[in-house]
Amino acid sequence: MSSRLDSVPGRRRRARKATDSARSDKYRRLTNPFEPAKVLSDDEVAGIHEAGLKVLAGTGIRVLHEEARSILKDAGAEVDEDTELVRIDPGLVTESLASAPSRFEIRSRTGTRDVLMGDRSVAFFPVAGPPHSMDLDRGRRAGTKDDYDDFIKLAQSFDVIHGLAPAVEPQDVPLEDRHLEMTLSQILFSDKIPFVYSRGRAQVADCLEMIGLANGVDESTLSEEPLCWTVINTNSPRQLDLPMCEGIIDFARAGQVLVITPFTLAGAMAPVSLAGALTLQHGEALAGLTLAQVVTPGAPVVYGAFTSNVDMRSGSPAFGTPEAFKAAVASGQLARHIGVPWRSSGVNTSNVPDAQSAYETMFNTFGALAGGANMVIHSAGWLESGLSASYEKFVLDIEMLQIIAESFQPIEATDAELALDAIAEVDPGGHFFGIDHTLARYRSAFYEPVLFNRVNFEQWQEEGAVTSMERANKLWKEALISFQAPPIDDGTAAALADFVGRRKAEGGAAPRS
Amino acid sequence: MSSRLDSVPGRRRRARKATDSARSDKYRRLTNPFEPAKVLSDDEVAGIHEAGLKVLAGTGIRVLHEEARSILKDAGAEVDEDTELVRIDPGLVTESLASAPSRFEIRSRTGTRDVLMGDRSVAFFPVAGPPHSMDLDRGRRAGTKDDYDDFIKLAQSFDVIHGLAPAVEPQDVPLEDRHLEMTLSQILFSDKIPFVYSRGRAQVADCLEMIGLANGVDESTLSEEPLCWTVINTNSPRQLDLPMCEGIIDFARAGQVLVITPFTLAGAMAPVSLAGALTLQHGEALAGLTLAQVVTPGAPVVYGAFTSNVDMRSGSPAFGTPEAFKAAVASGQLARHIGVPWRSSGVNTSNVPDAQSAYETMFNTFGALAGGANMVIHSAGWLESGLSASYEKFVLDIEMLQIIAESFQPIEATDAELALDAIAEVDPGGHFFGIDHTLARYRSAFYEPVLFNRVNFEQWQEEGAVTSMERANKLWKEALISFQAPPIDDGTAAALADFVGRRKAEGGAAPRS
Repeated sequence: MSSRLDSVPGRRRRARKATDSARSDKYRRLTNPFEPAKVLSDDEVAGIHEAGLKVLAGTGIRVLHEEARSILKDAGAEVDEDTELVRIDPGLVTESLASAPSRFEIRSRTGTRDVLMGDRSVAFFPVAGPPHSMDLDRGRRAGTKDDYDDFIKLAQSFDVIHGLAPAVEPQDVPLEDRHLEMTLSQILFSDKIPFVYSRGRAQVADCLEMIGLANGVDESTLSEEPLCWTVINTNSPRQLDLPMCEGIIDFARAGQVLVITPFTLAGAMAPVSLAGALTLQHGEALAGLTLAQVVTPGAPVVYGAFTSNVDMRSGSPAFGTPEAFKAAVASGQLARHIGVPWRSSGVNTSNVPDAQSAYETMFNTFGALAGGANMVIHSAGWLESGLSASYEKFVLDIEMLQIIAESFQPIEATDAELALDAIAEVDPGGHFFGIDHTLARYRSAFYEPVLFNRVNFEQWQEEGAVTSMERANKLWKEALISFQAPPIDDGTAAALADFVGRRKAEGGAAPRS
Repeated sequence: MSSRLDSVPGRRRRARKATDSARSDKYRRLTNPFEPAKVLSDDEVAGIHEAGLKVLAGTGIRVLHEEARSILKDAGAEVDEDTELVRIDPGLVTESLASAPSRFEIRSRTGTRDVLMGDRSVAFFPVAGPPHSMDLDRGRRAGTKDDYDDFIKLAQSFDVIHGLAPAVEPQDVPLEDRHLEMTLSQILFSDKIPFVYSRGRAQVADCLEMIGLANGVDESTLSEEPLCWTVINTNSPRQLDLPMCEGIIDFARAGQVLVITPFTLAGAMAPVSLAGALTLQHGEALAGLTLAQVVTPGAPVVYGAFTSNVDMRSGSPAFGTPEAFKAAVASGQLARHIGVPWRSSGVNTSNVPDAQSAYETMFNTFGALAGGANMVIHSAGWLESGLSASYEKFVLDIEMLQIIAESFQPIEATDAELALDAIAEVDPGGHFFGIDHTLARYRSAFYEPVLFNRVNFEQWQEEGAVTSMERANKLWKEALISFQAPPIDDGTAAALADFVGRRKAEGGAAPRS
């Protein structure tokens, strides 16, 4: 048995490690102090909500999964088995909204990285889903298990990242074992909230069992508390496919977090008008939410908003756009209208971590924060419209997320901070460098960048004119070299290894298609 | 006489050119639709205001200019001629605030680029003041008159830039002629609001005379309407030097716009505490504002806020910091508390237009916009903590300013835009590309970037893996090649040339030191 057994908390423990620095701790739970912005009047919000309800009640949504149709039918929805169209009346949606929680905690396995979903809480999650990895040394390439592990370690290394996400697809792991390896890495290399892909019932069951093992809970008690999350992307427009339906049903039954995110790119999978794209987003999100609440009233659901637009010249997705910004703010209004936490994104279209990628990511992230998002996914490392996870972009984004987190801290306006004595002490045209007021505060007064550079041009040139991308290259390597896995007790680690070994020997589980 | 004489408006004309595209016109006058953010409680705002008043009444401000001291003394201030310290009681400041306008228009010489200063109006002004120019081809070098002209032309080329600023110092022009050449370039290459440096009475008189000529007004009528602007930087802490005092007096007498901006970098020229730096900023801004209002009650004054912090490791300025963000939001609260328009900045510390420069500029700009700034200076082209004006950064910033301007446009939420019919028309899992609802709207539905790139990685690589900086290099060259100067009548142009020739022959005017 590990001597660190005592540091693994019991089910209800919430101990914080005293060894973490004050500055670092500040980022662990963030509250957005700014009043959410509005781009729609209250009437317009109500109008889009009503329009979303009309889509569900009149036009309907195609549900490819028989059990899901049957569950909705039993709850009162009108189902056409020939077309697989399901029409859900507003009463059922409203009832489902009443049971969906407006806030909940997601518990981390050590109890030190719990995430509040709701209220003014903001949690940042890294890039999720790209097939490729990219870095300055190795270029762009198919994602590997090593890359996947690296990104989990990077996510663990910075407190401003609050949960895990599958930064890159480990394409060198067989499909039927991939979910096992990915879940194991998340548990061994991190104590932040793990992510589970909804790739079918068998894979989800494996992953939930592993997460139960890591948290010391079994099948019967797992559903008592959220411990992990998944994303449900509707197949916009108006369709829920087999793995998505199974994800909703299985996560709702297990009491785990569903982030239901319609993939509504205006002009392609959604109407070209922003109000139309939001209507479709809202209707589809309500359909997923309703299915979840019918399965388990009270199931933890997050309203996912991904509405952006396509580039009308190329038909390709566009991110960091003014339309995406407004859609994010509007989505916040819609989520608050229905009373559930909501998720947004920090995304961009650039092929390289250059100025464009920074501007776009910032603009999309600001849309999320202006709109009061509780969960911002893809907020570090996303590149190339989500086709690559970039090591350099990851740490560049970390710097900005830390700056954002610092900007959430209040200004102290006590008499001592107003500094009238200090102002009187310094002569006109003088400086404040050496005075007591400064000396007492300078060490912690300002955010110290981990990556951004402020040396003057001449010194910068002498040092090799290193750009932020090259500094980022150095930083992620340092973070990986100094990485230390969080504690896990030997018994748990062994049980997980046994489970993975056994399931692999049994052939793993193919993804649902 | 030019045949375009009729296109030069009379004093009160406000005609808009119909030839400008609708999209372009949208950017000419921007209204920030978002409610200003708050980082201070109302009590804290009042507390910083009171503290600023205490600095002026108790500790005082050193005023190096005899006439300025005399003016303030006549108005009731307590003046110590030995120390040159001036103490201004709260009554005089409050009286001055009562006469300062909360909003005013700055008129452009063609009447098509007028700028509203106040309310929810936002006007973007480009980089001002660097000694160096920088671009990808020629590197970093001393600024020249050619560079200066280029930046005026670039500022004129994009409607999202609302006024002019001295992007770079034309170091190849003799000091005594520089103000003449700079003012002439602004008038000939642009019809946007010109900028005049406060470098002493003689230079300011020359510049105002030229601007009067360009606007068809003489000395007696010039003061009826704001036509140009200057920046007054206090010599923080607590000092106003000779050229700054003369600038305040002369601009107030001429009814021209004073942007009074204390140079309060927390930890260096201002207290290390943010509340202390804001107190000093506020006190110094109030001192300048009071002098202006005593000279001319009703003089158009803008509350300038530049509070950021220094890097405590190097002592060099830091921009785009969380502290600067919070200071900007707080400055907006202070400006609204005293009822005057306010100015902020889009600044950064990077030595190259890389991801860092983009993140920092965006973060500082967002502080300005979240705080409801009316005027955002340095919003395009600023680099290297203001030591270089970058051609590439200029157009990169233009892209972002246009995206920001687009995000200010409302979402249309009419029935047609909610698109219920279009949603019903497209099959589940289908797409909206070819339907009527899309075809009727796609041309104008989304912002089209001028610089940002959305091609996929493979195509991008085939095309040479061009980064946003290289595309920016191409764009500014195209803008300069296709540049067309706005109309000016031959008589005015000749009169300006005569004036500049005569004043140069007379030896110009040396800057005040």
